[in-house]
Amino acid sequence: MNTAAAIATASKAAAPHIAKAKTAAKNTALLALAAELRAQANAIVAANGKDMAAAAKLPTALKDRLLLDENRIQAMLTGIETITALPDPIGEINNMRMMPSGIRVGQIRVPLGVIFAIYESRPNVTADIAALAIKSGNAVILRGGKEANHSNIAIGTCVQAALKHAGLPPDTVHVVSDTARSLVDKLLVSDGIDLVIPRGGRGLIETVTQKARMPVLKHLEGNCHVYVDSQANMTQACDIVINAKTRRYGVCAAAESLLVHKSAAATFLPEISTELLERGVELRGCDTTQKIIGSDKCQTASEDDWRTEYLAPIISIKVVPSLAAAITHINQFGSGHTDTIVTDSVGAWQQFMREVDSSSVMLNASTAFADGGEYGLGAEVGISTDKFHARGPVGLRGLTCEKYIIIGDGSVRA
Amino acid sequence: MNTAAAIATASKAAAPHIAKAKTAAKNTALLALAAELRAQANAIVAANGKDMAAAAKLPTALKDRLLLDENRIQAMLTGIETITALPDPIGEINNMRMMPSGIRVGQIRVPLGVIFAIYESRPNVTADIAALAIKSGNAVILRGGKEANHSNIAIGTCVQAALKHAGLPPDTVHVVSDTARSLVDKLLVSDGIDLVIPRGGRGLIETVTQKARMPVLKHLEGNCHVYVDSQANMTQACDIVINAKTRRYGVCAAAESLLVHKSAAATFLPEISTELLERGVELRGCDTTQKIIGSDKCQTASEDDWRTEYLAPIISIKVVPSLAAAITHINQFGSGHTDTIVTDSVGAWQQFMREVDSSSVMLNASTAFADGGEYGLGAEVGISTDKFHARGPVGLRGLTCEKYIIIGDGSVRA
Repeated sequence: MNTAAAIATASKAAAPHIAKAKTAAKNTALLALAAELRAQANAIVAANGKDMAAAAKLPTALKDRLLLDENRIQAMLTGIETITALPDPIGEINNMRMMPSGIRVGQIRVPLGVIFAIYESRPNVTADIAALAIKSGNAVILRGGKEANHSNIAIGTCVQAALKHAGLPPDTVHVVSDTARSLVDKLLVSDGIDLVIPRGGRGLIETVTQKARMPVLKHLEGNCHVYVDSQANMTQACDIVINAKTRRYGVCAAAESLLVHKSAAATFLPEISTELLERGVELRGCDTTQKIIGSDKCQTASEDDWRTEYLAPIISIKVVPSLAAAITHINQFGSGHTDTIVTDSVGAWQQFMREVDSSSVMLNASTAFADGGEYGLGAEVGISTDKFHARGPVGLRGLTCEKYIIIGDGSVRA
Repeated sequence: MNTAAAIATASKAAAPHIAKAKTAAKNTALLALAAELRAQANAIVAANGKDMAAAAKLPTALKDRLLLDENRIQAMLTGIETITALPDPIGEINNMRMMPSGIRVGQIRVPLGVIFAIYESRPNVTADIAALAIKSGNAVILRGGKEANHSNIAIGTCVQAALKHAGLPPDTVHVVSDTARSLVDKLLVSDGIDLVIPRGGRGLIETVTQKARMPVLKHLEGNCHVYVDSQANMTQACDIVINAKTRRYGVCAAAESLLVHKSAAATFLPEISTELLERGVELRGCDTTQKIIGSDKCQTASEDDWRTEYLAPIISIKVVPSLAAAITHINQFGSGHTDTIVTDSVGAWQQFMREVDSSSVMLNASTAFADGGEYGLGAEVGISTDKFHARGPVGLRGLTCEKYIIIGDGSVRA
């Protein structure tokens, strides 16, 4: 099954079956998937070894994304088990109310249909999205990064076995093994796909948005900011910056830019710059930053730096005259992903929360928390930077919609 | 302000102001709008008279859509007053929960930003969408049908006066007075517009989907079905078909197609066909239908008929062998808008509700109820036939989204 038309047709045929599958059958498939991944852990690590060998010359952050080891496989299993334990969103009926006309109006939650996910190098995403799709009653076509292809195929084999074990159509989840770009292009104009979810940089998002005939739920890169307010607790600010920047460089929730209120700059910048430099993080600052910490320790930031998701041990630093200036900077240069304010001021938090136009706005917390698991969603398809349908980490509900149900008694409209 | 760039820029500049406007200011603007429309009723009816005169040769259904009289202006006022009384959705915080890591995670409802609505001839839509945009904190660009341009401009003047009265930026609502298609094309690729909502037929939807650079919330035509099941109460079925078809021909919620279970056909079809013919409705049926009611009373339906939204006193009729066949027909030929089943069988309803892939699925109720007002939304932007973001009648909430808020205490991720 290699052509786009064949893949789309098979997925569309599977969709009504998974849509009406009972919760028990879906959970059986998920538990079978966890068991299969555990049983095949060695084979998966071996397949990942091939990908890692081919990736030897790639940047460290990319290799970190690509790697699967026992710990990360265990994390996949935990994610799947968490999803299994979540209530099934499909079929839930909400807001059923009696209207003055005598009809009852409510909404029922249903799957979207067929979802096409395009993502980058992290192979655990294959298992996460497969599990979320099964639980939410959707068919899914998974197209991971070509550098992770061996790993993805190995995981896909486990998913197929699990679906068969549960008596569900194996075509519910299709891992695209042919990583030619032309196949993606054809899938983007295929009938029968209800939604495409691209995860990646601006290039991918723009290409997909331009080519896709179906709706697009964009998962753009994370150019995340930490803003240290004049009313910040400096110890908290330091902990948060270090965690947000250095916990893991290759993830979209990593902080890429630090904004500091001018009244906090003279005390905070020397301290944080020492901590960051000790951890091998390169600093790129505005003029004021360079004056405070020395241009020997801090390169000059260009406007490009304000826009850049480094995914590397680099951080841009800017001193801002006010909270309003910080918000303006974030809304201009950020990617609408996740931004945090460190402050003890209720007023500053209220303004930041209201005015920063990002999928997650945080108070006194590290941007590293931006993650479906941390938000209680079990796992995530990714982090939507769109304002429509689903914003922020996308879990089960993001893969569903609500349709209206109306119950009458031979009711006619006056 | 006539160029697309000027309109988009002005709307984008107004958006942050209306986004953070207090509920009281927004309600003041809405009540001022209602008062202004009442005060200017004669002027609006006169402007509408110019549109009606120019539309003299257009089809009756279109003229019915276009007409504004005292009653319809009163209905606009009632809609605006209902919207004023609704709770303000902006700023509501939901699902705030403590996570195992110690962070609190919840969601806050915020406006979308700048919305571009493209719709057809009904001028009351201008007032409805303006009111919904103001209450939901969005800026909106309104481009109605060119045949309603005098009416829309007159209503737009009232909106401007109301916004000024409330101290809100007049650019919050921009009624496009230049109805050249080229202006629409330029707006569809303008920066600063967050969403386009096209309401209309397949041609409009396809053009907009193809050209728009921003997300599209599709409001496709309503090819609505009434399915009369074998277990239907025949009196209810008759009432519902008559109401759904003849209450108002020119609206998207009107039924265009009647499906009848074979075991009900011999008794139901002669009765309903007499009632429909008496009301001047033309019948187009399948072979079985023609055999039962006579080919002198019923023309032959082509496959095109199954796809057609007539918006006229015409109905297509098909006898189906089973509920499953009815559902397959609806999902193949319908527009995903609104479909109803008449039955006393719980099992049939459950299957219809689950499997019919439309924005509203109804039981023993007329499709004519598909309307934001009837669903308790106050008024509607229109009826979304998309599965994403908002499905079915779009009211205040459909013009908002939720972003995540995270509250920590110097929290860092392990």
